[in-house]
Amino acid sequence: MKNKIKALLTLHLSIFIITSIFCNTVTAQEKKQIVRLAKLVIDSSQLENYKALLKEGIETAVSVEPGVLTLYAVSEKSNPTHVTILEIYADTAAYKAHLQTPHFIKYKTATKDMVKSLELVETVPLVPGMKIK
Amino acid sequence: MKNKIKALLTLHLSIFIITSIFCNTVTAQEKKQIVRLAKLVIDSSQLENYKALLKEGIETAVSVEPGVLTLYAVSEKSNPTHVTILEIYADTAAYKAHLQTPHFIKYKTATKDMVKSLELVETVPLVPGMKIK
Repeated sequence: MKNKIKALLTLHLSIFIITSIFCNTVTAQEKKQIVRLAKLVIDSSQLENYKALLKEGIETAVSVEPGVLTLYAVSEKSNPTHVTILEIYADTAAYKAHLQTPHFIKYKTATKDMVKSLELVETVPLVPGMKIK
Repeated sequence: MKNKIKALLTLHLSIFIITSIFCNTVTAQEKKQIVRLAKLVIDSSQLENYKALLKEGIETAVSVEPGVLTLYAVSEKSNPTHVTILEIYADTAAYKAHLQTPHFIKYKTATKDMVKSLELVETVPLVPGMKIK
């Protein structure tokens, strides 16, 4: 009987330790994330071209770069030239690597005369780990 | 041999039709989505309380409401009282239902004197179906 209780306690302790390690790892990973808002204003005469180039760049980045966790881009209904992108990178290394990719360089070069202004706002996520269903 | 080719062509056509139907369904669902940015400024003396109430409201909404696809909230590093939330609802009905939930009403009531300003910006997603890895 004593041995049974001892075995159960050991099992519970093991589960507790494993859970703690796992949870800490998740939090540590999330803490490393770079989360920001890119706020752009686009030249209205080139908006359709810009949107096509942005879409291509985003789809490539998210599909081939594991460290690009999302690039969620929207344009304002009442002001379509105003574009906001929620950018989440796994860590600084993932962001730096992204800047060197051919698809990012292509997007950046092709759109440089279409972007009238760009503001990068560094942020802190208030519910880390939030996903899109 | 001829029958084999005929069977193969039928199979290909079936796959094509099924894929088309599936893709159109996905697009139709995405077209119904309500995607917007909520931009808030919070009273600095109540910021910590506000963030706790927001986190609780968001976690409840996303876990119990299938139609709340995400509520991704960030605060600006250089201006922590400035909060932006990317809100995605499956459709208008999901959004209207959300407004009637006890957790939303609790959040709205509890934070009404903490929110100095609120701007709701209706948007169009530029890469519909984008997720967060």
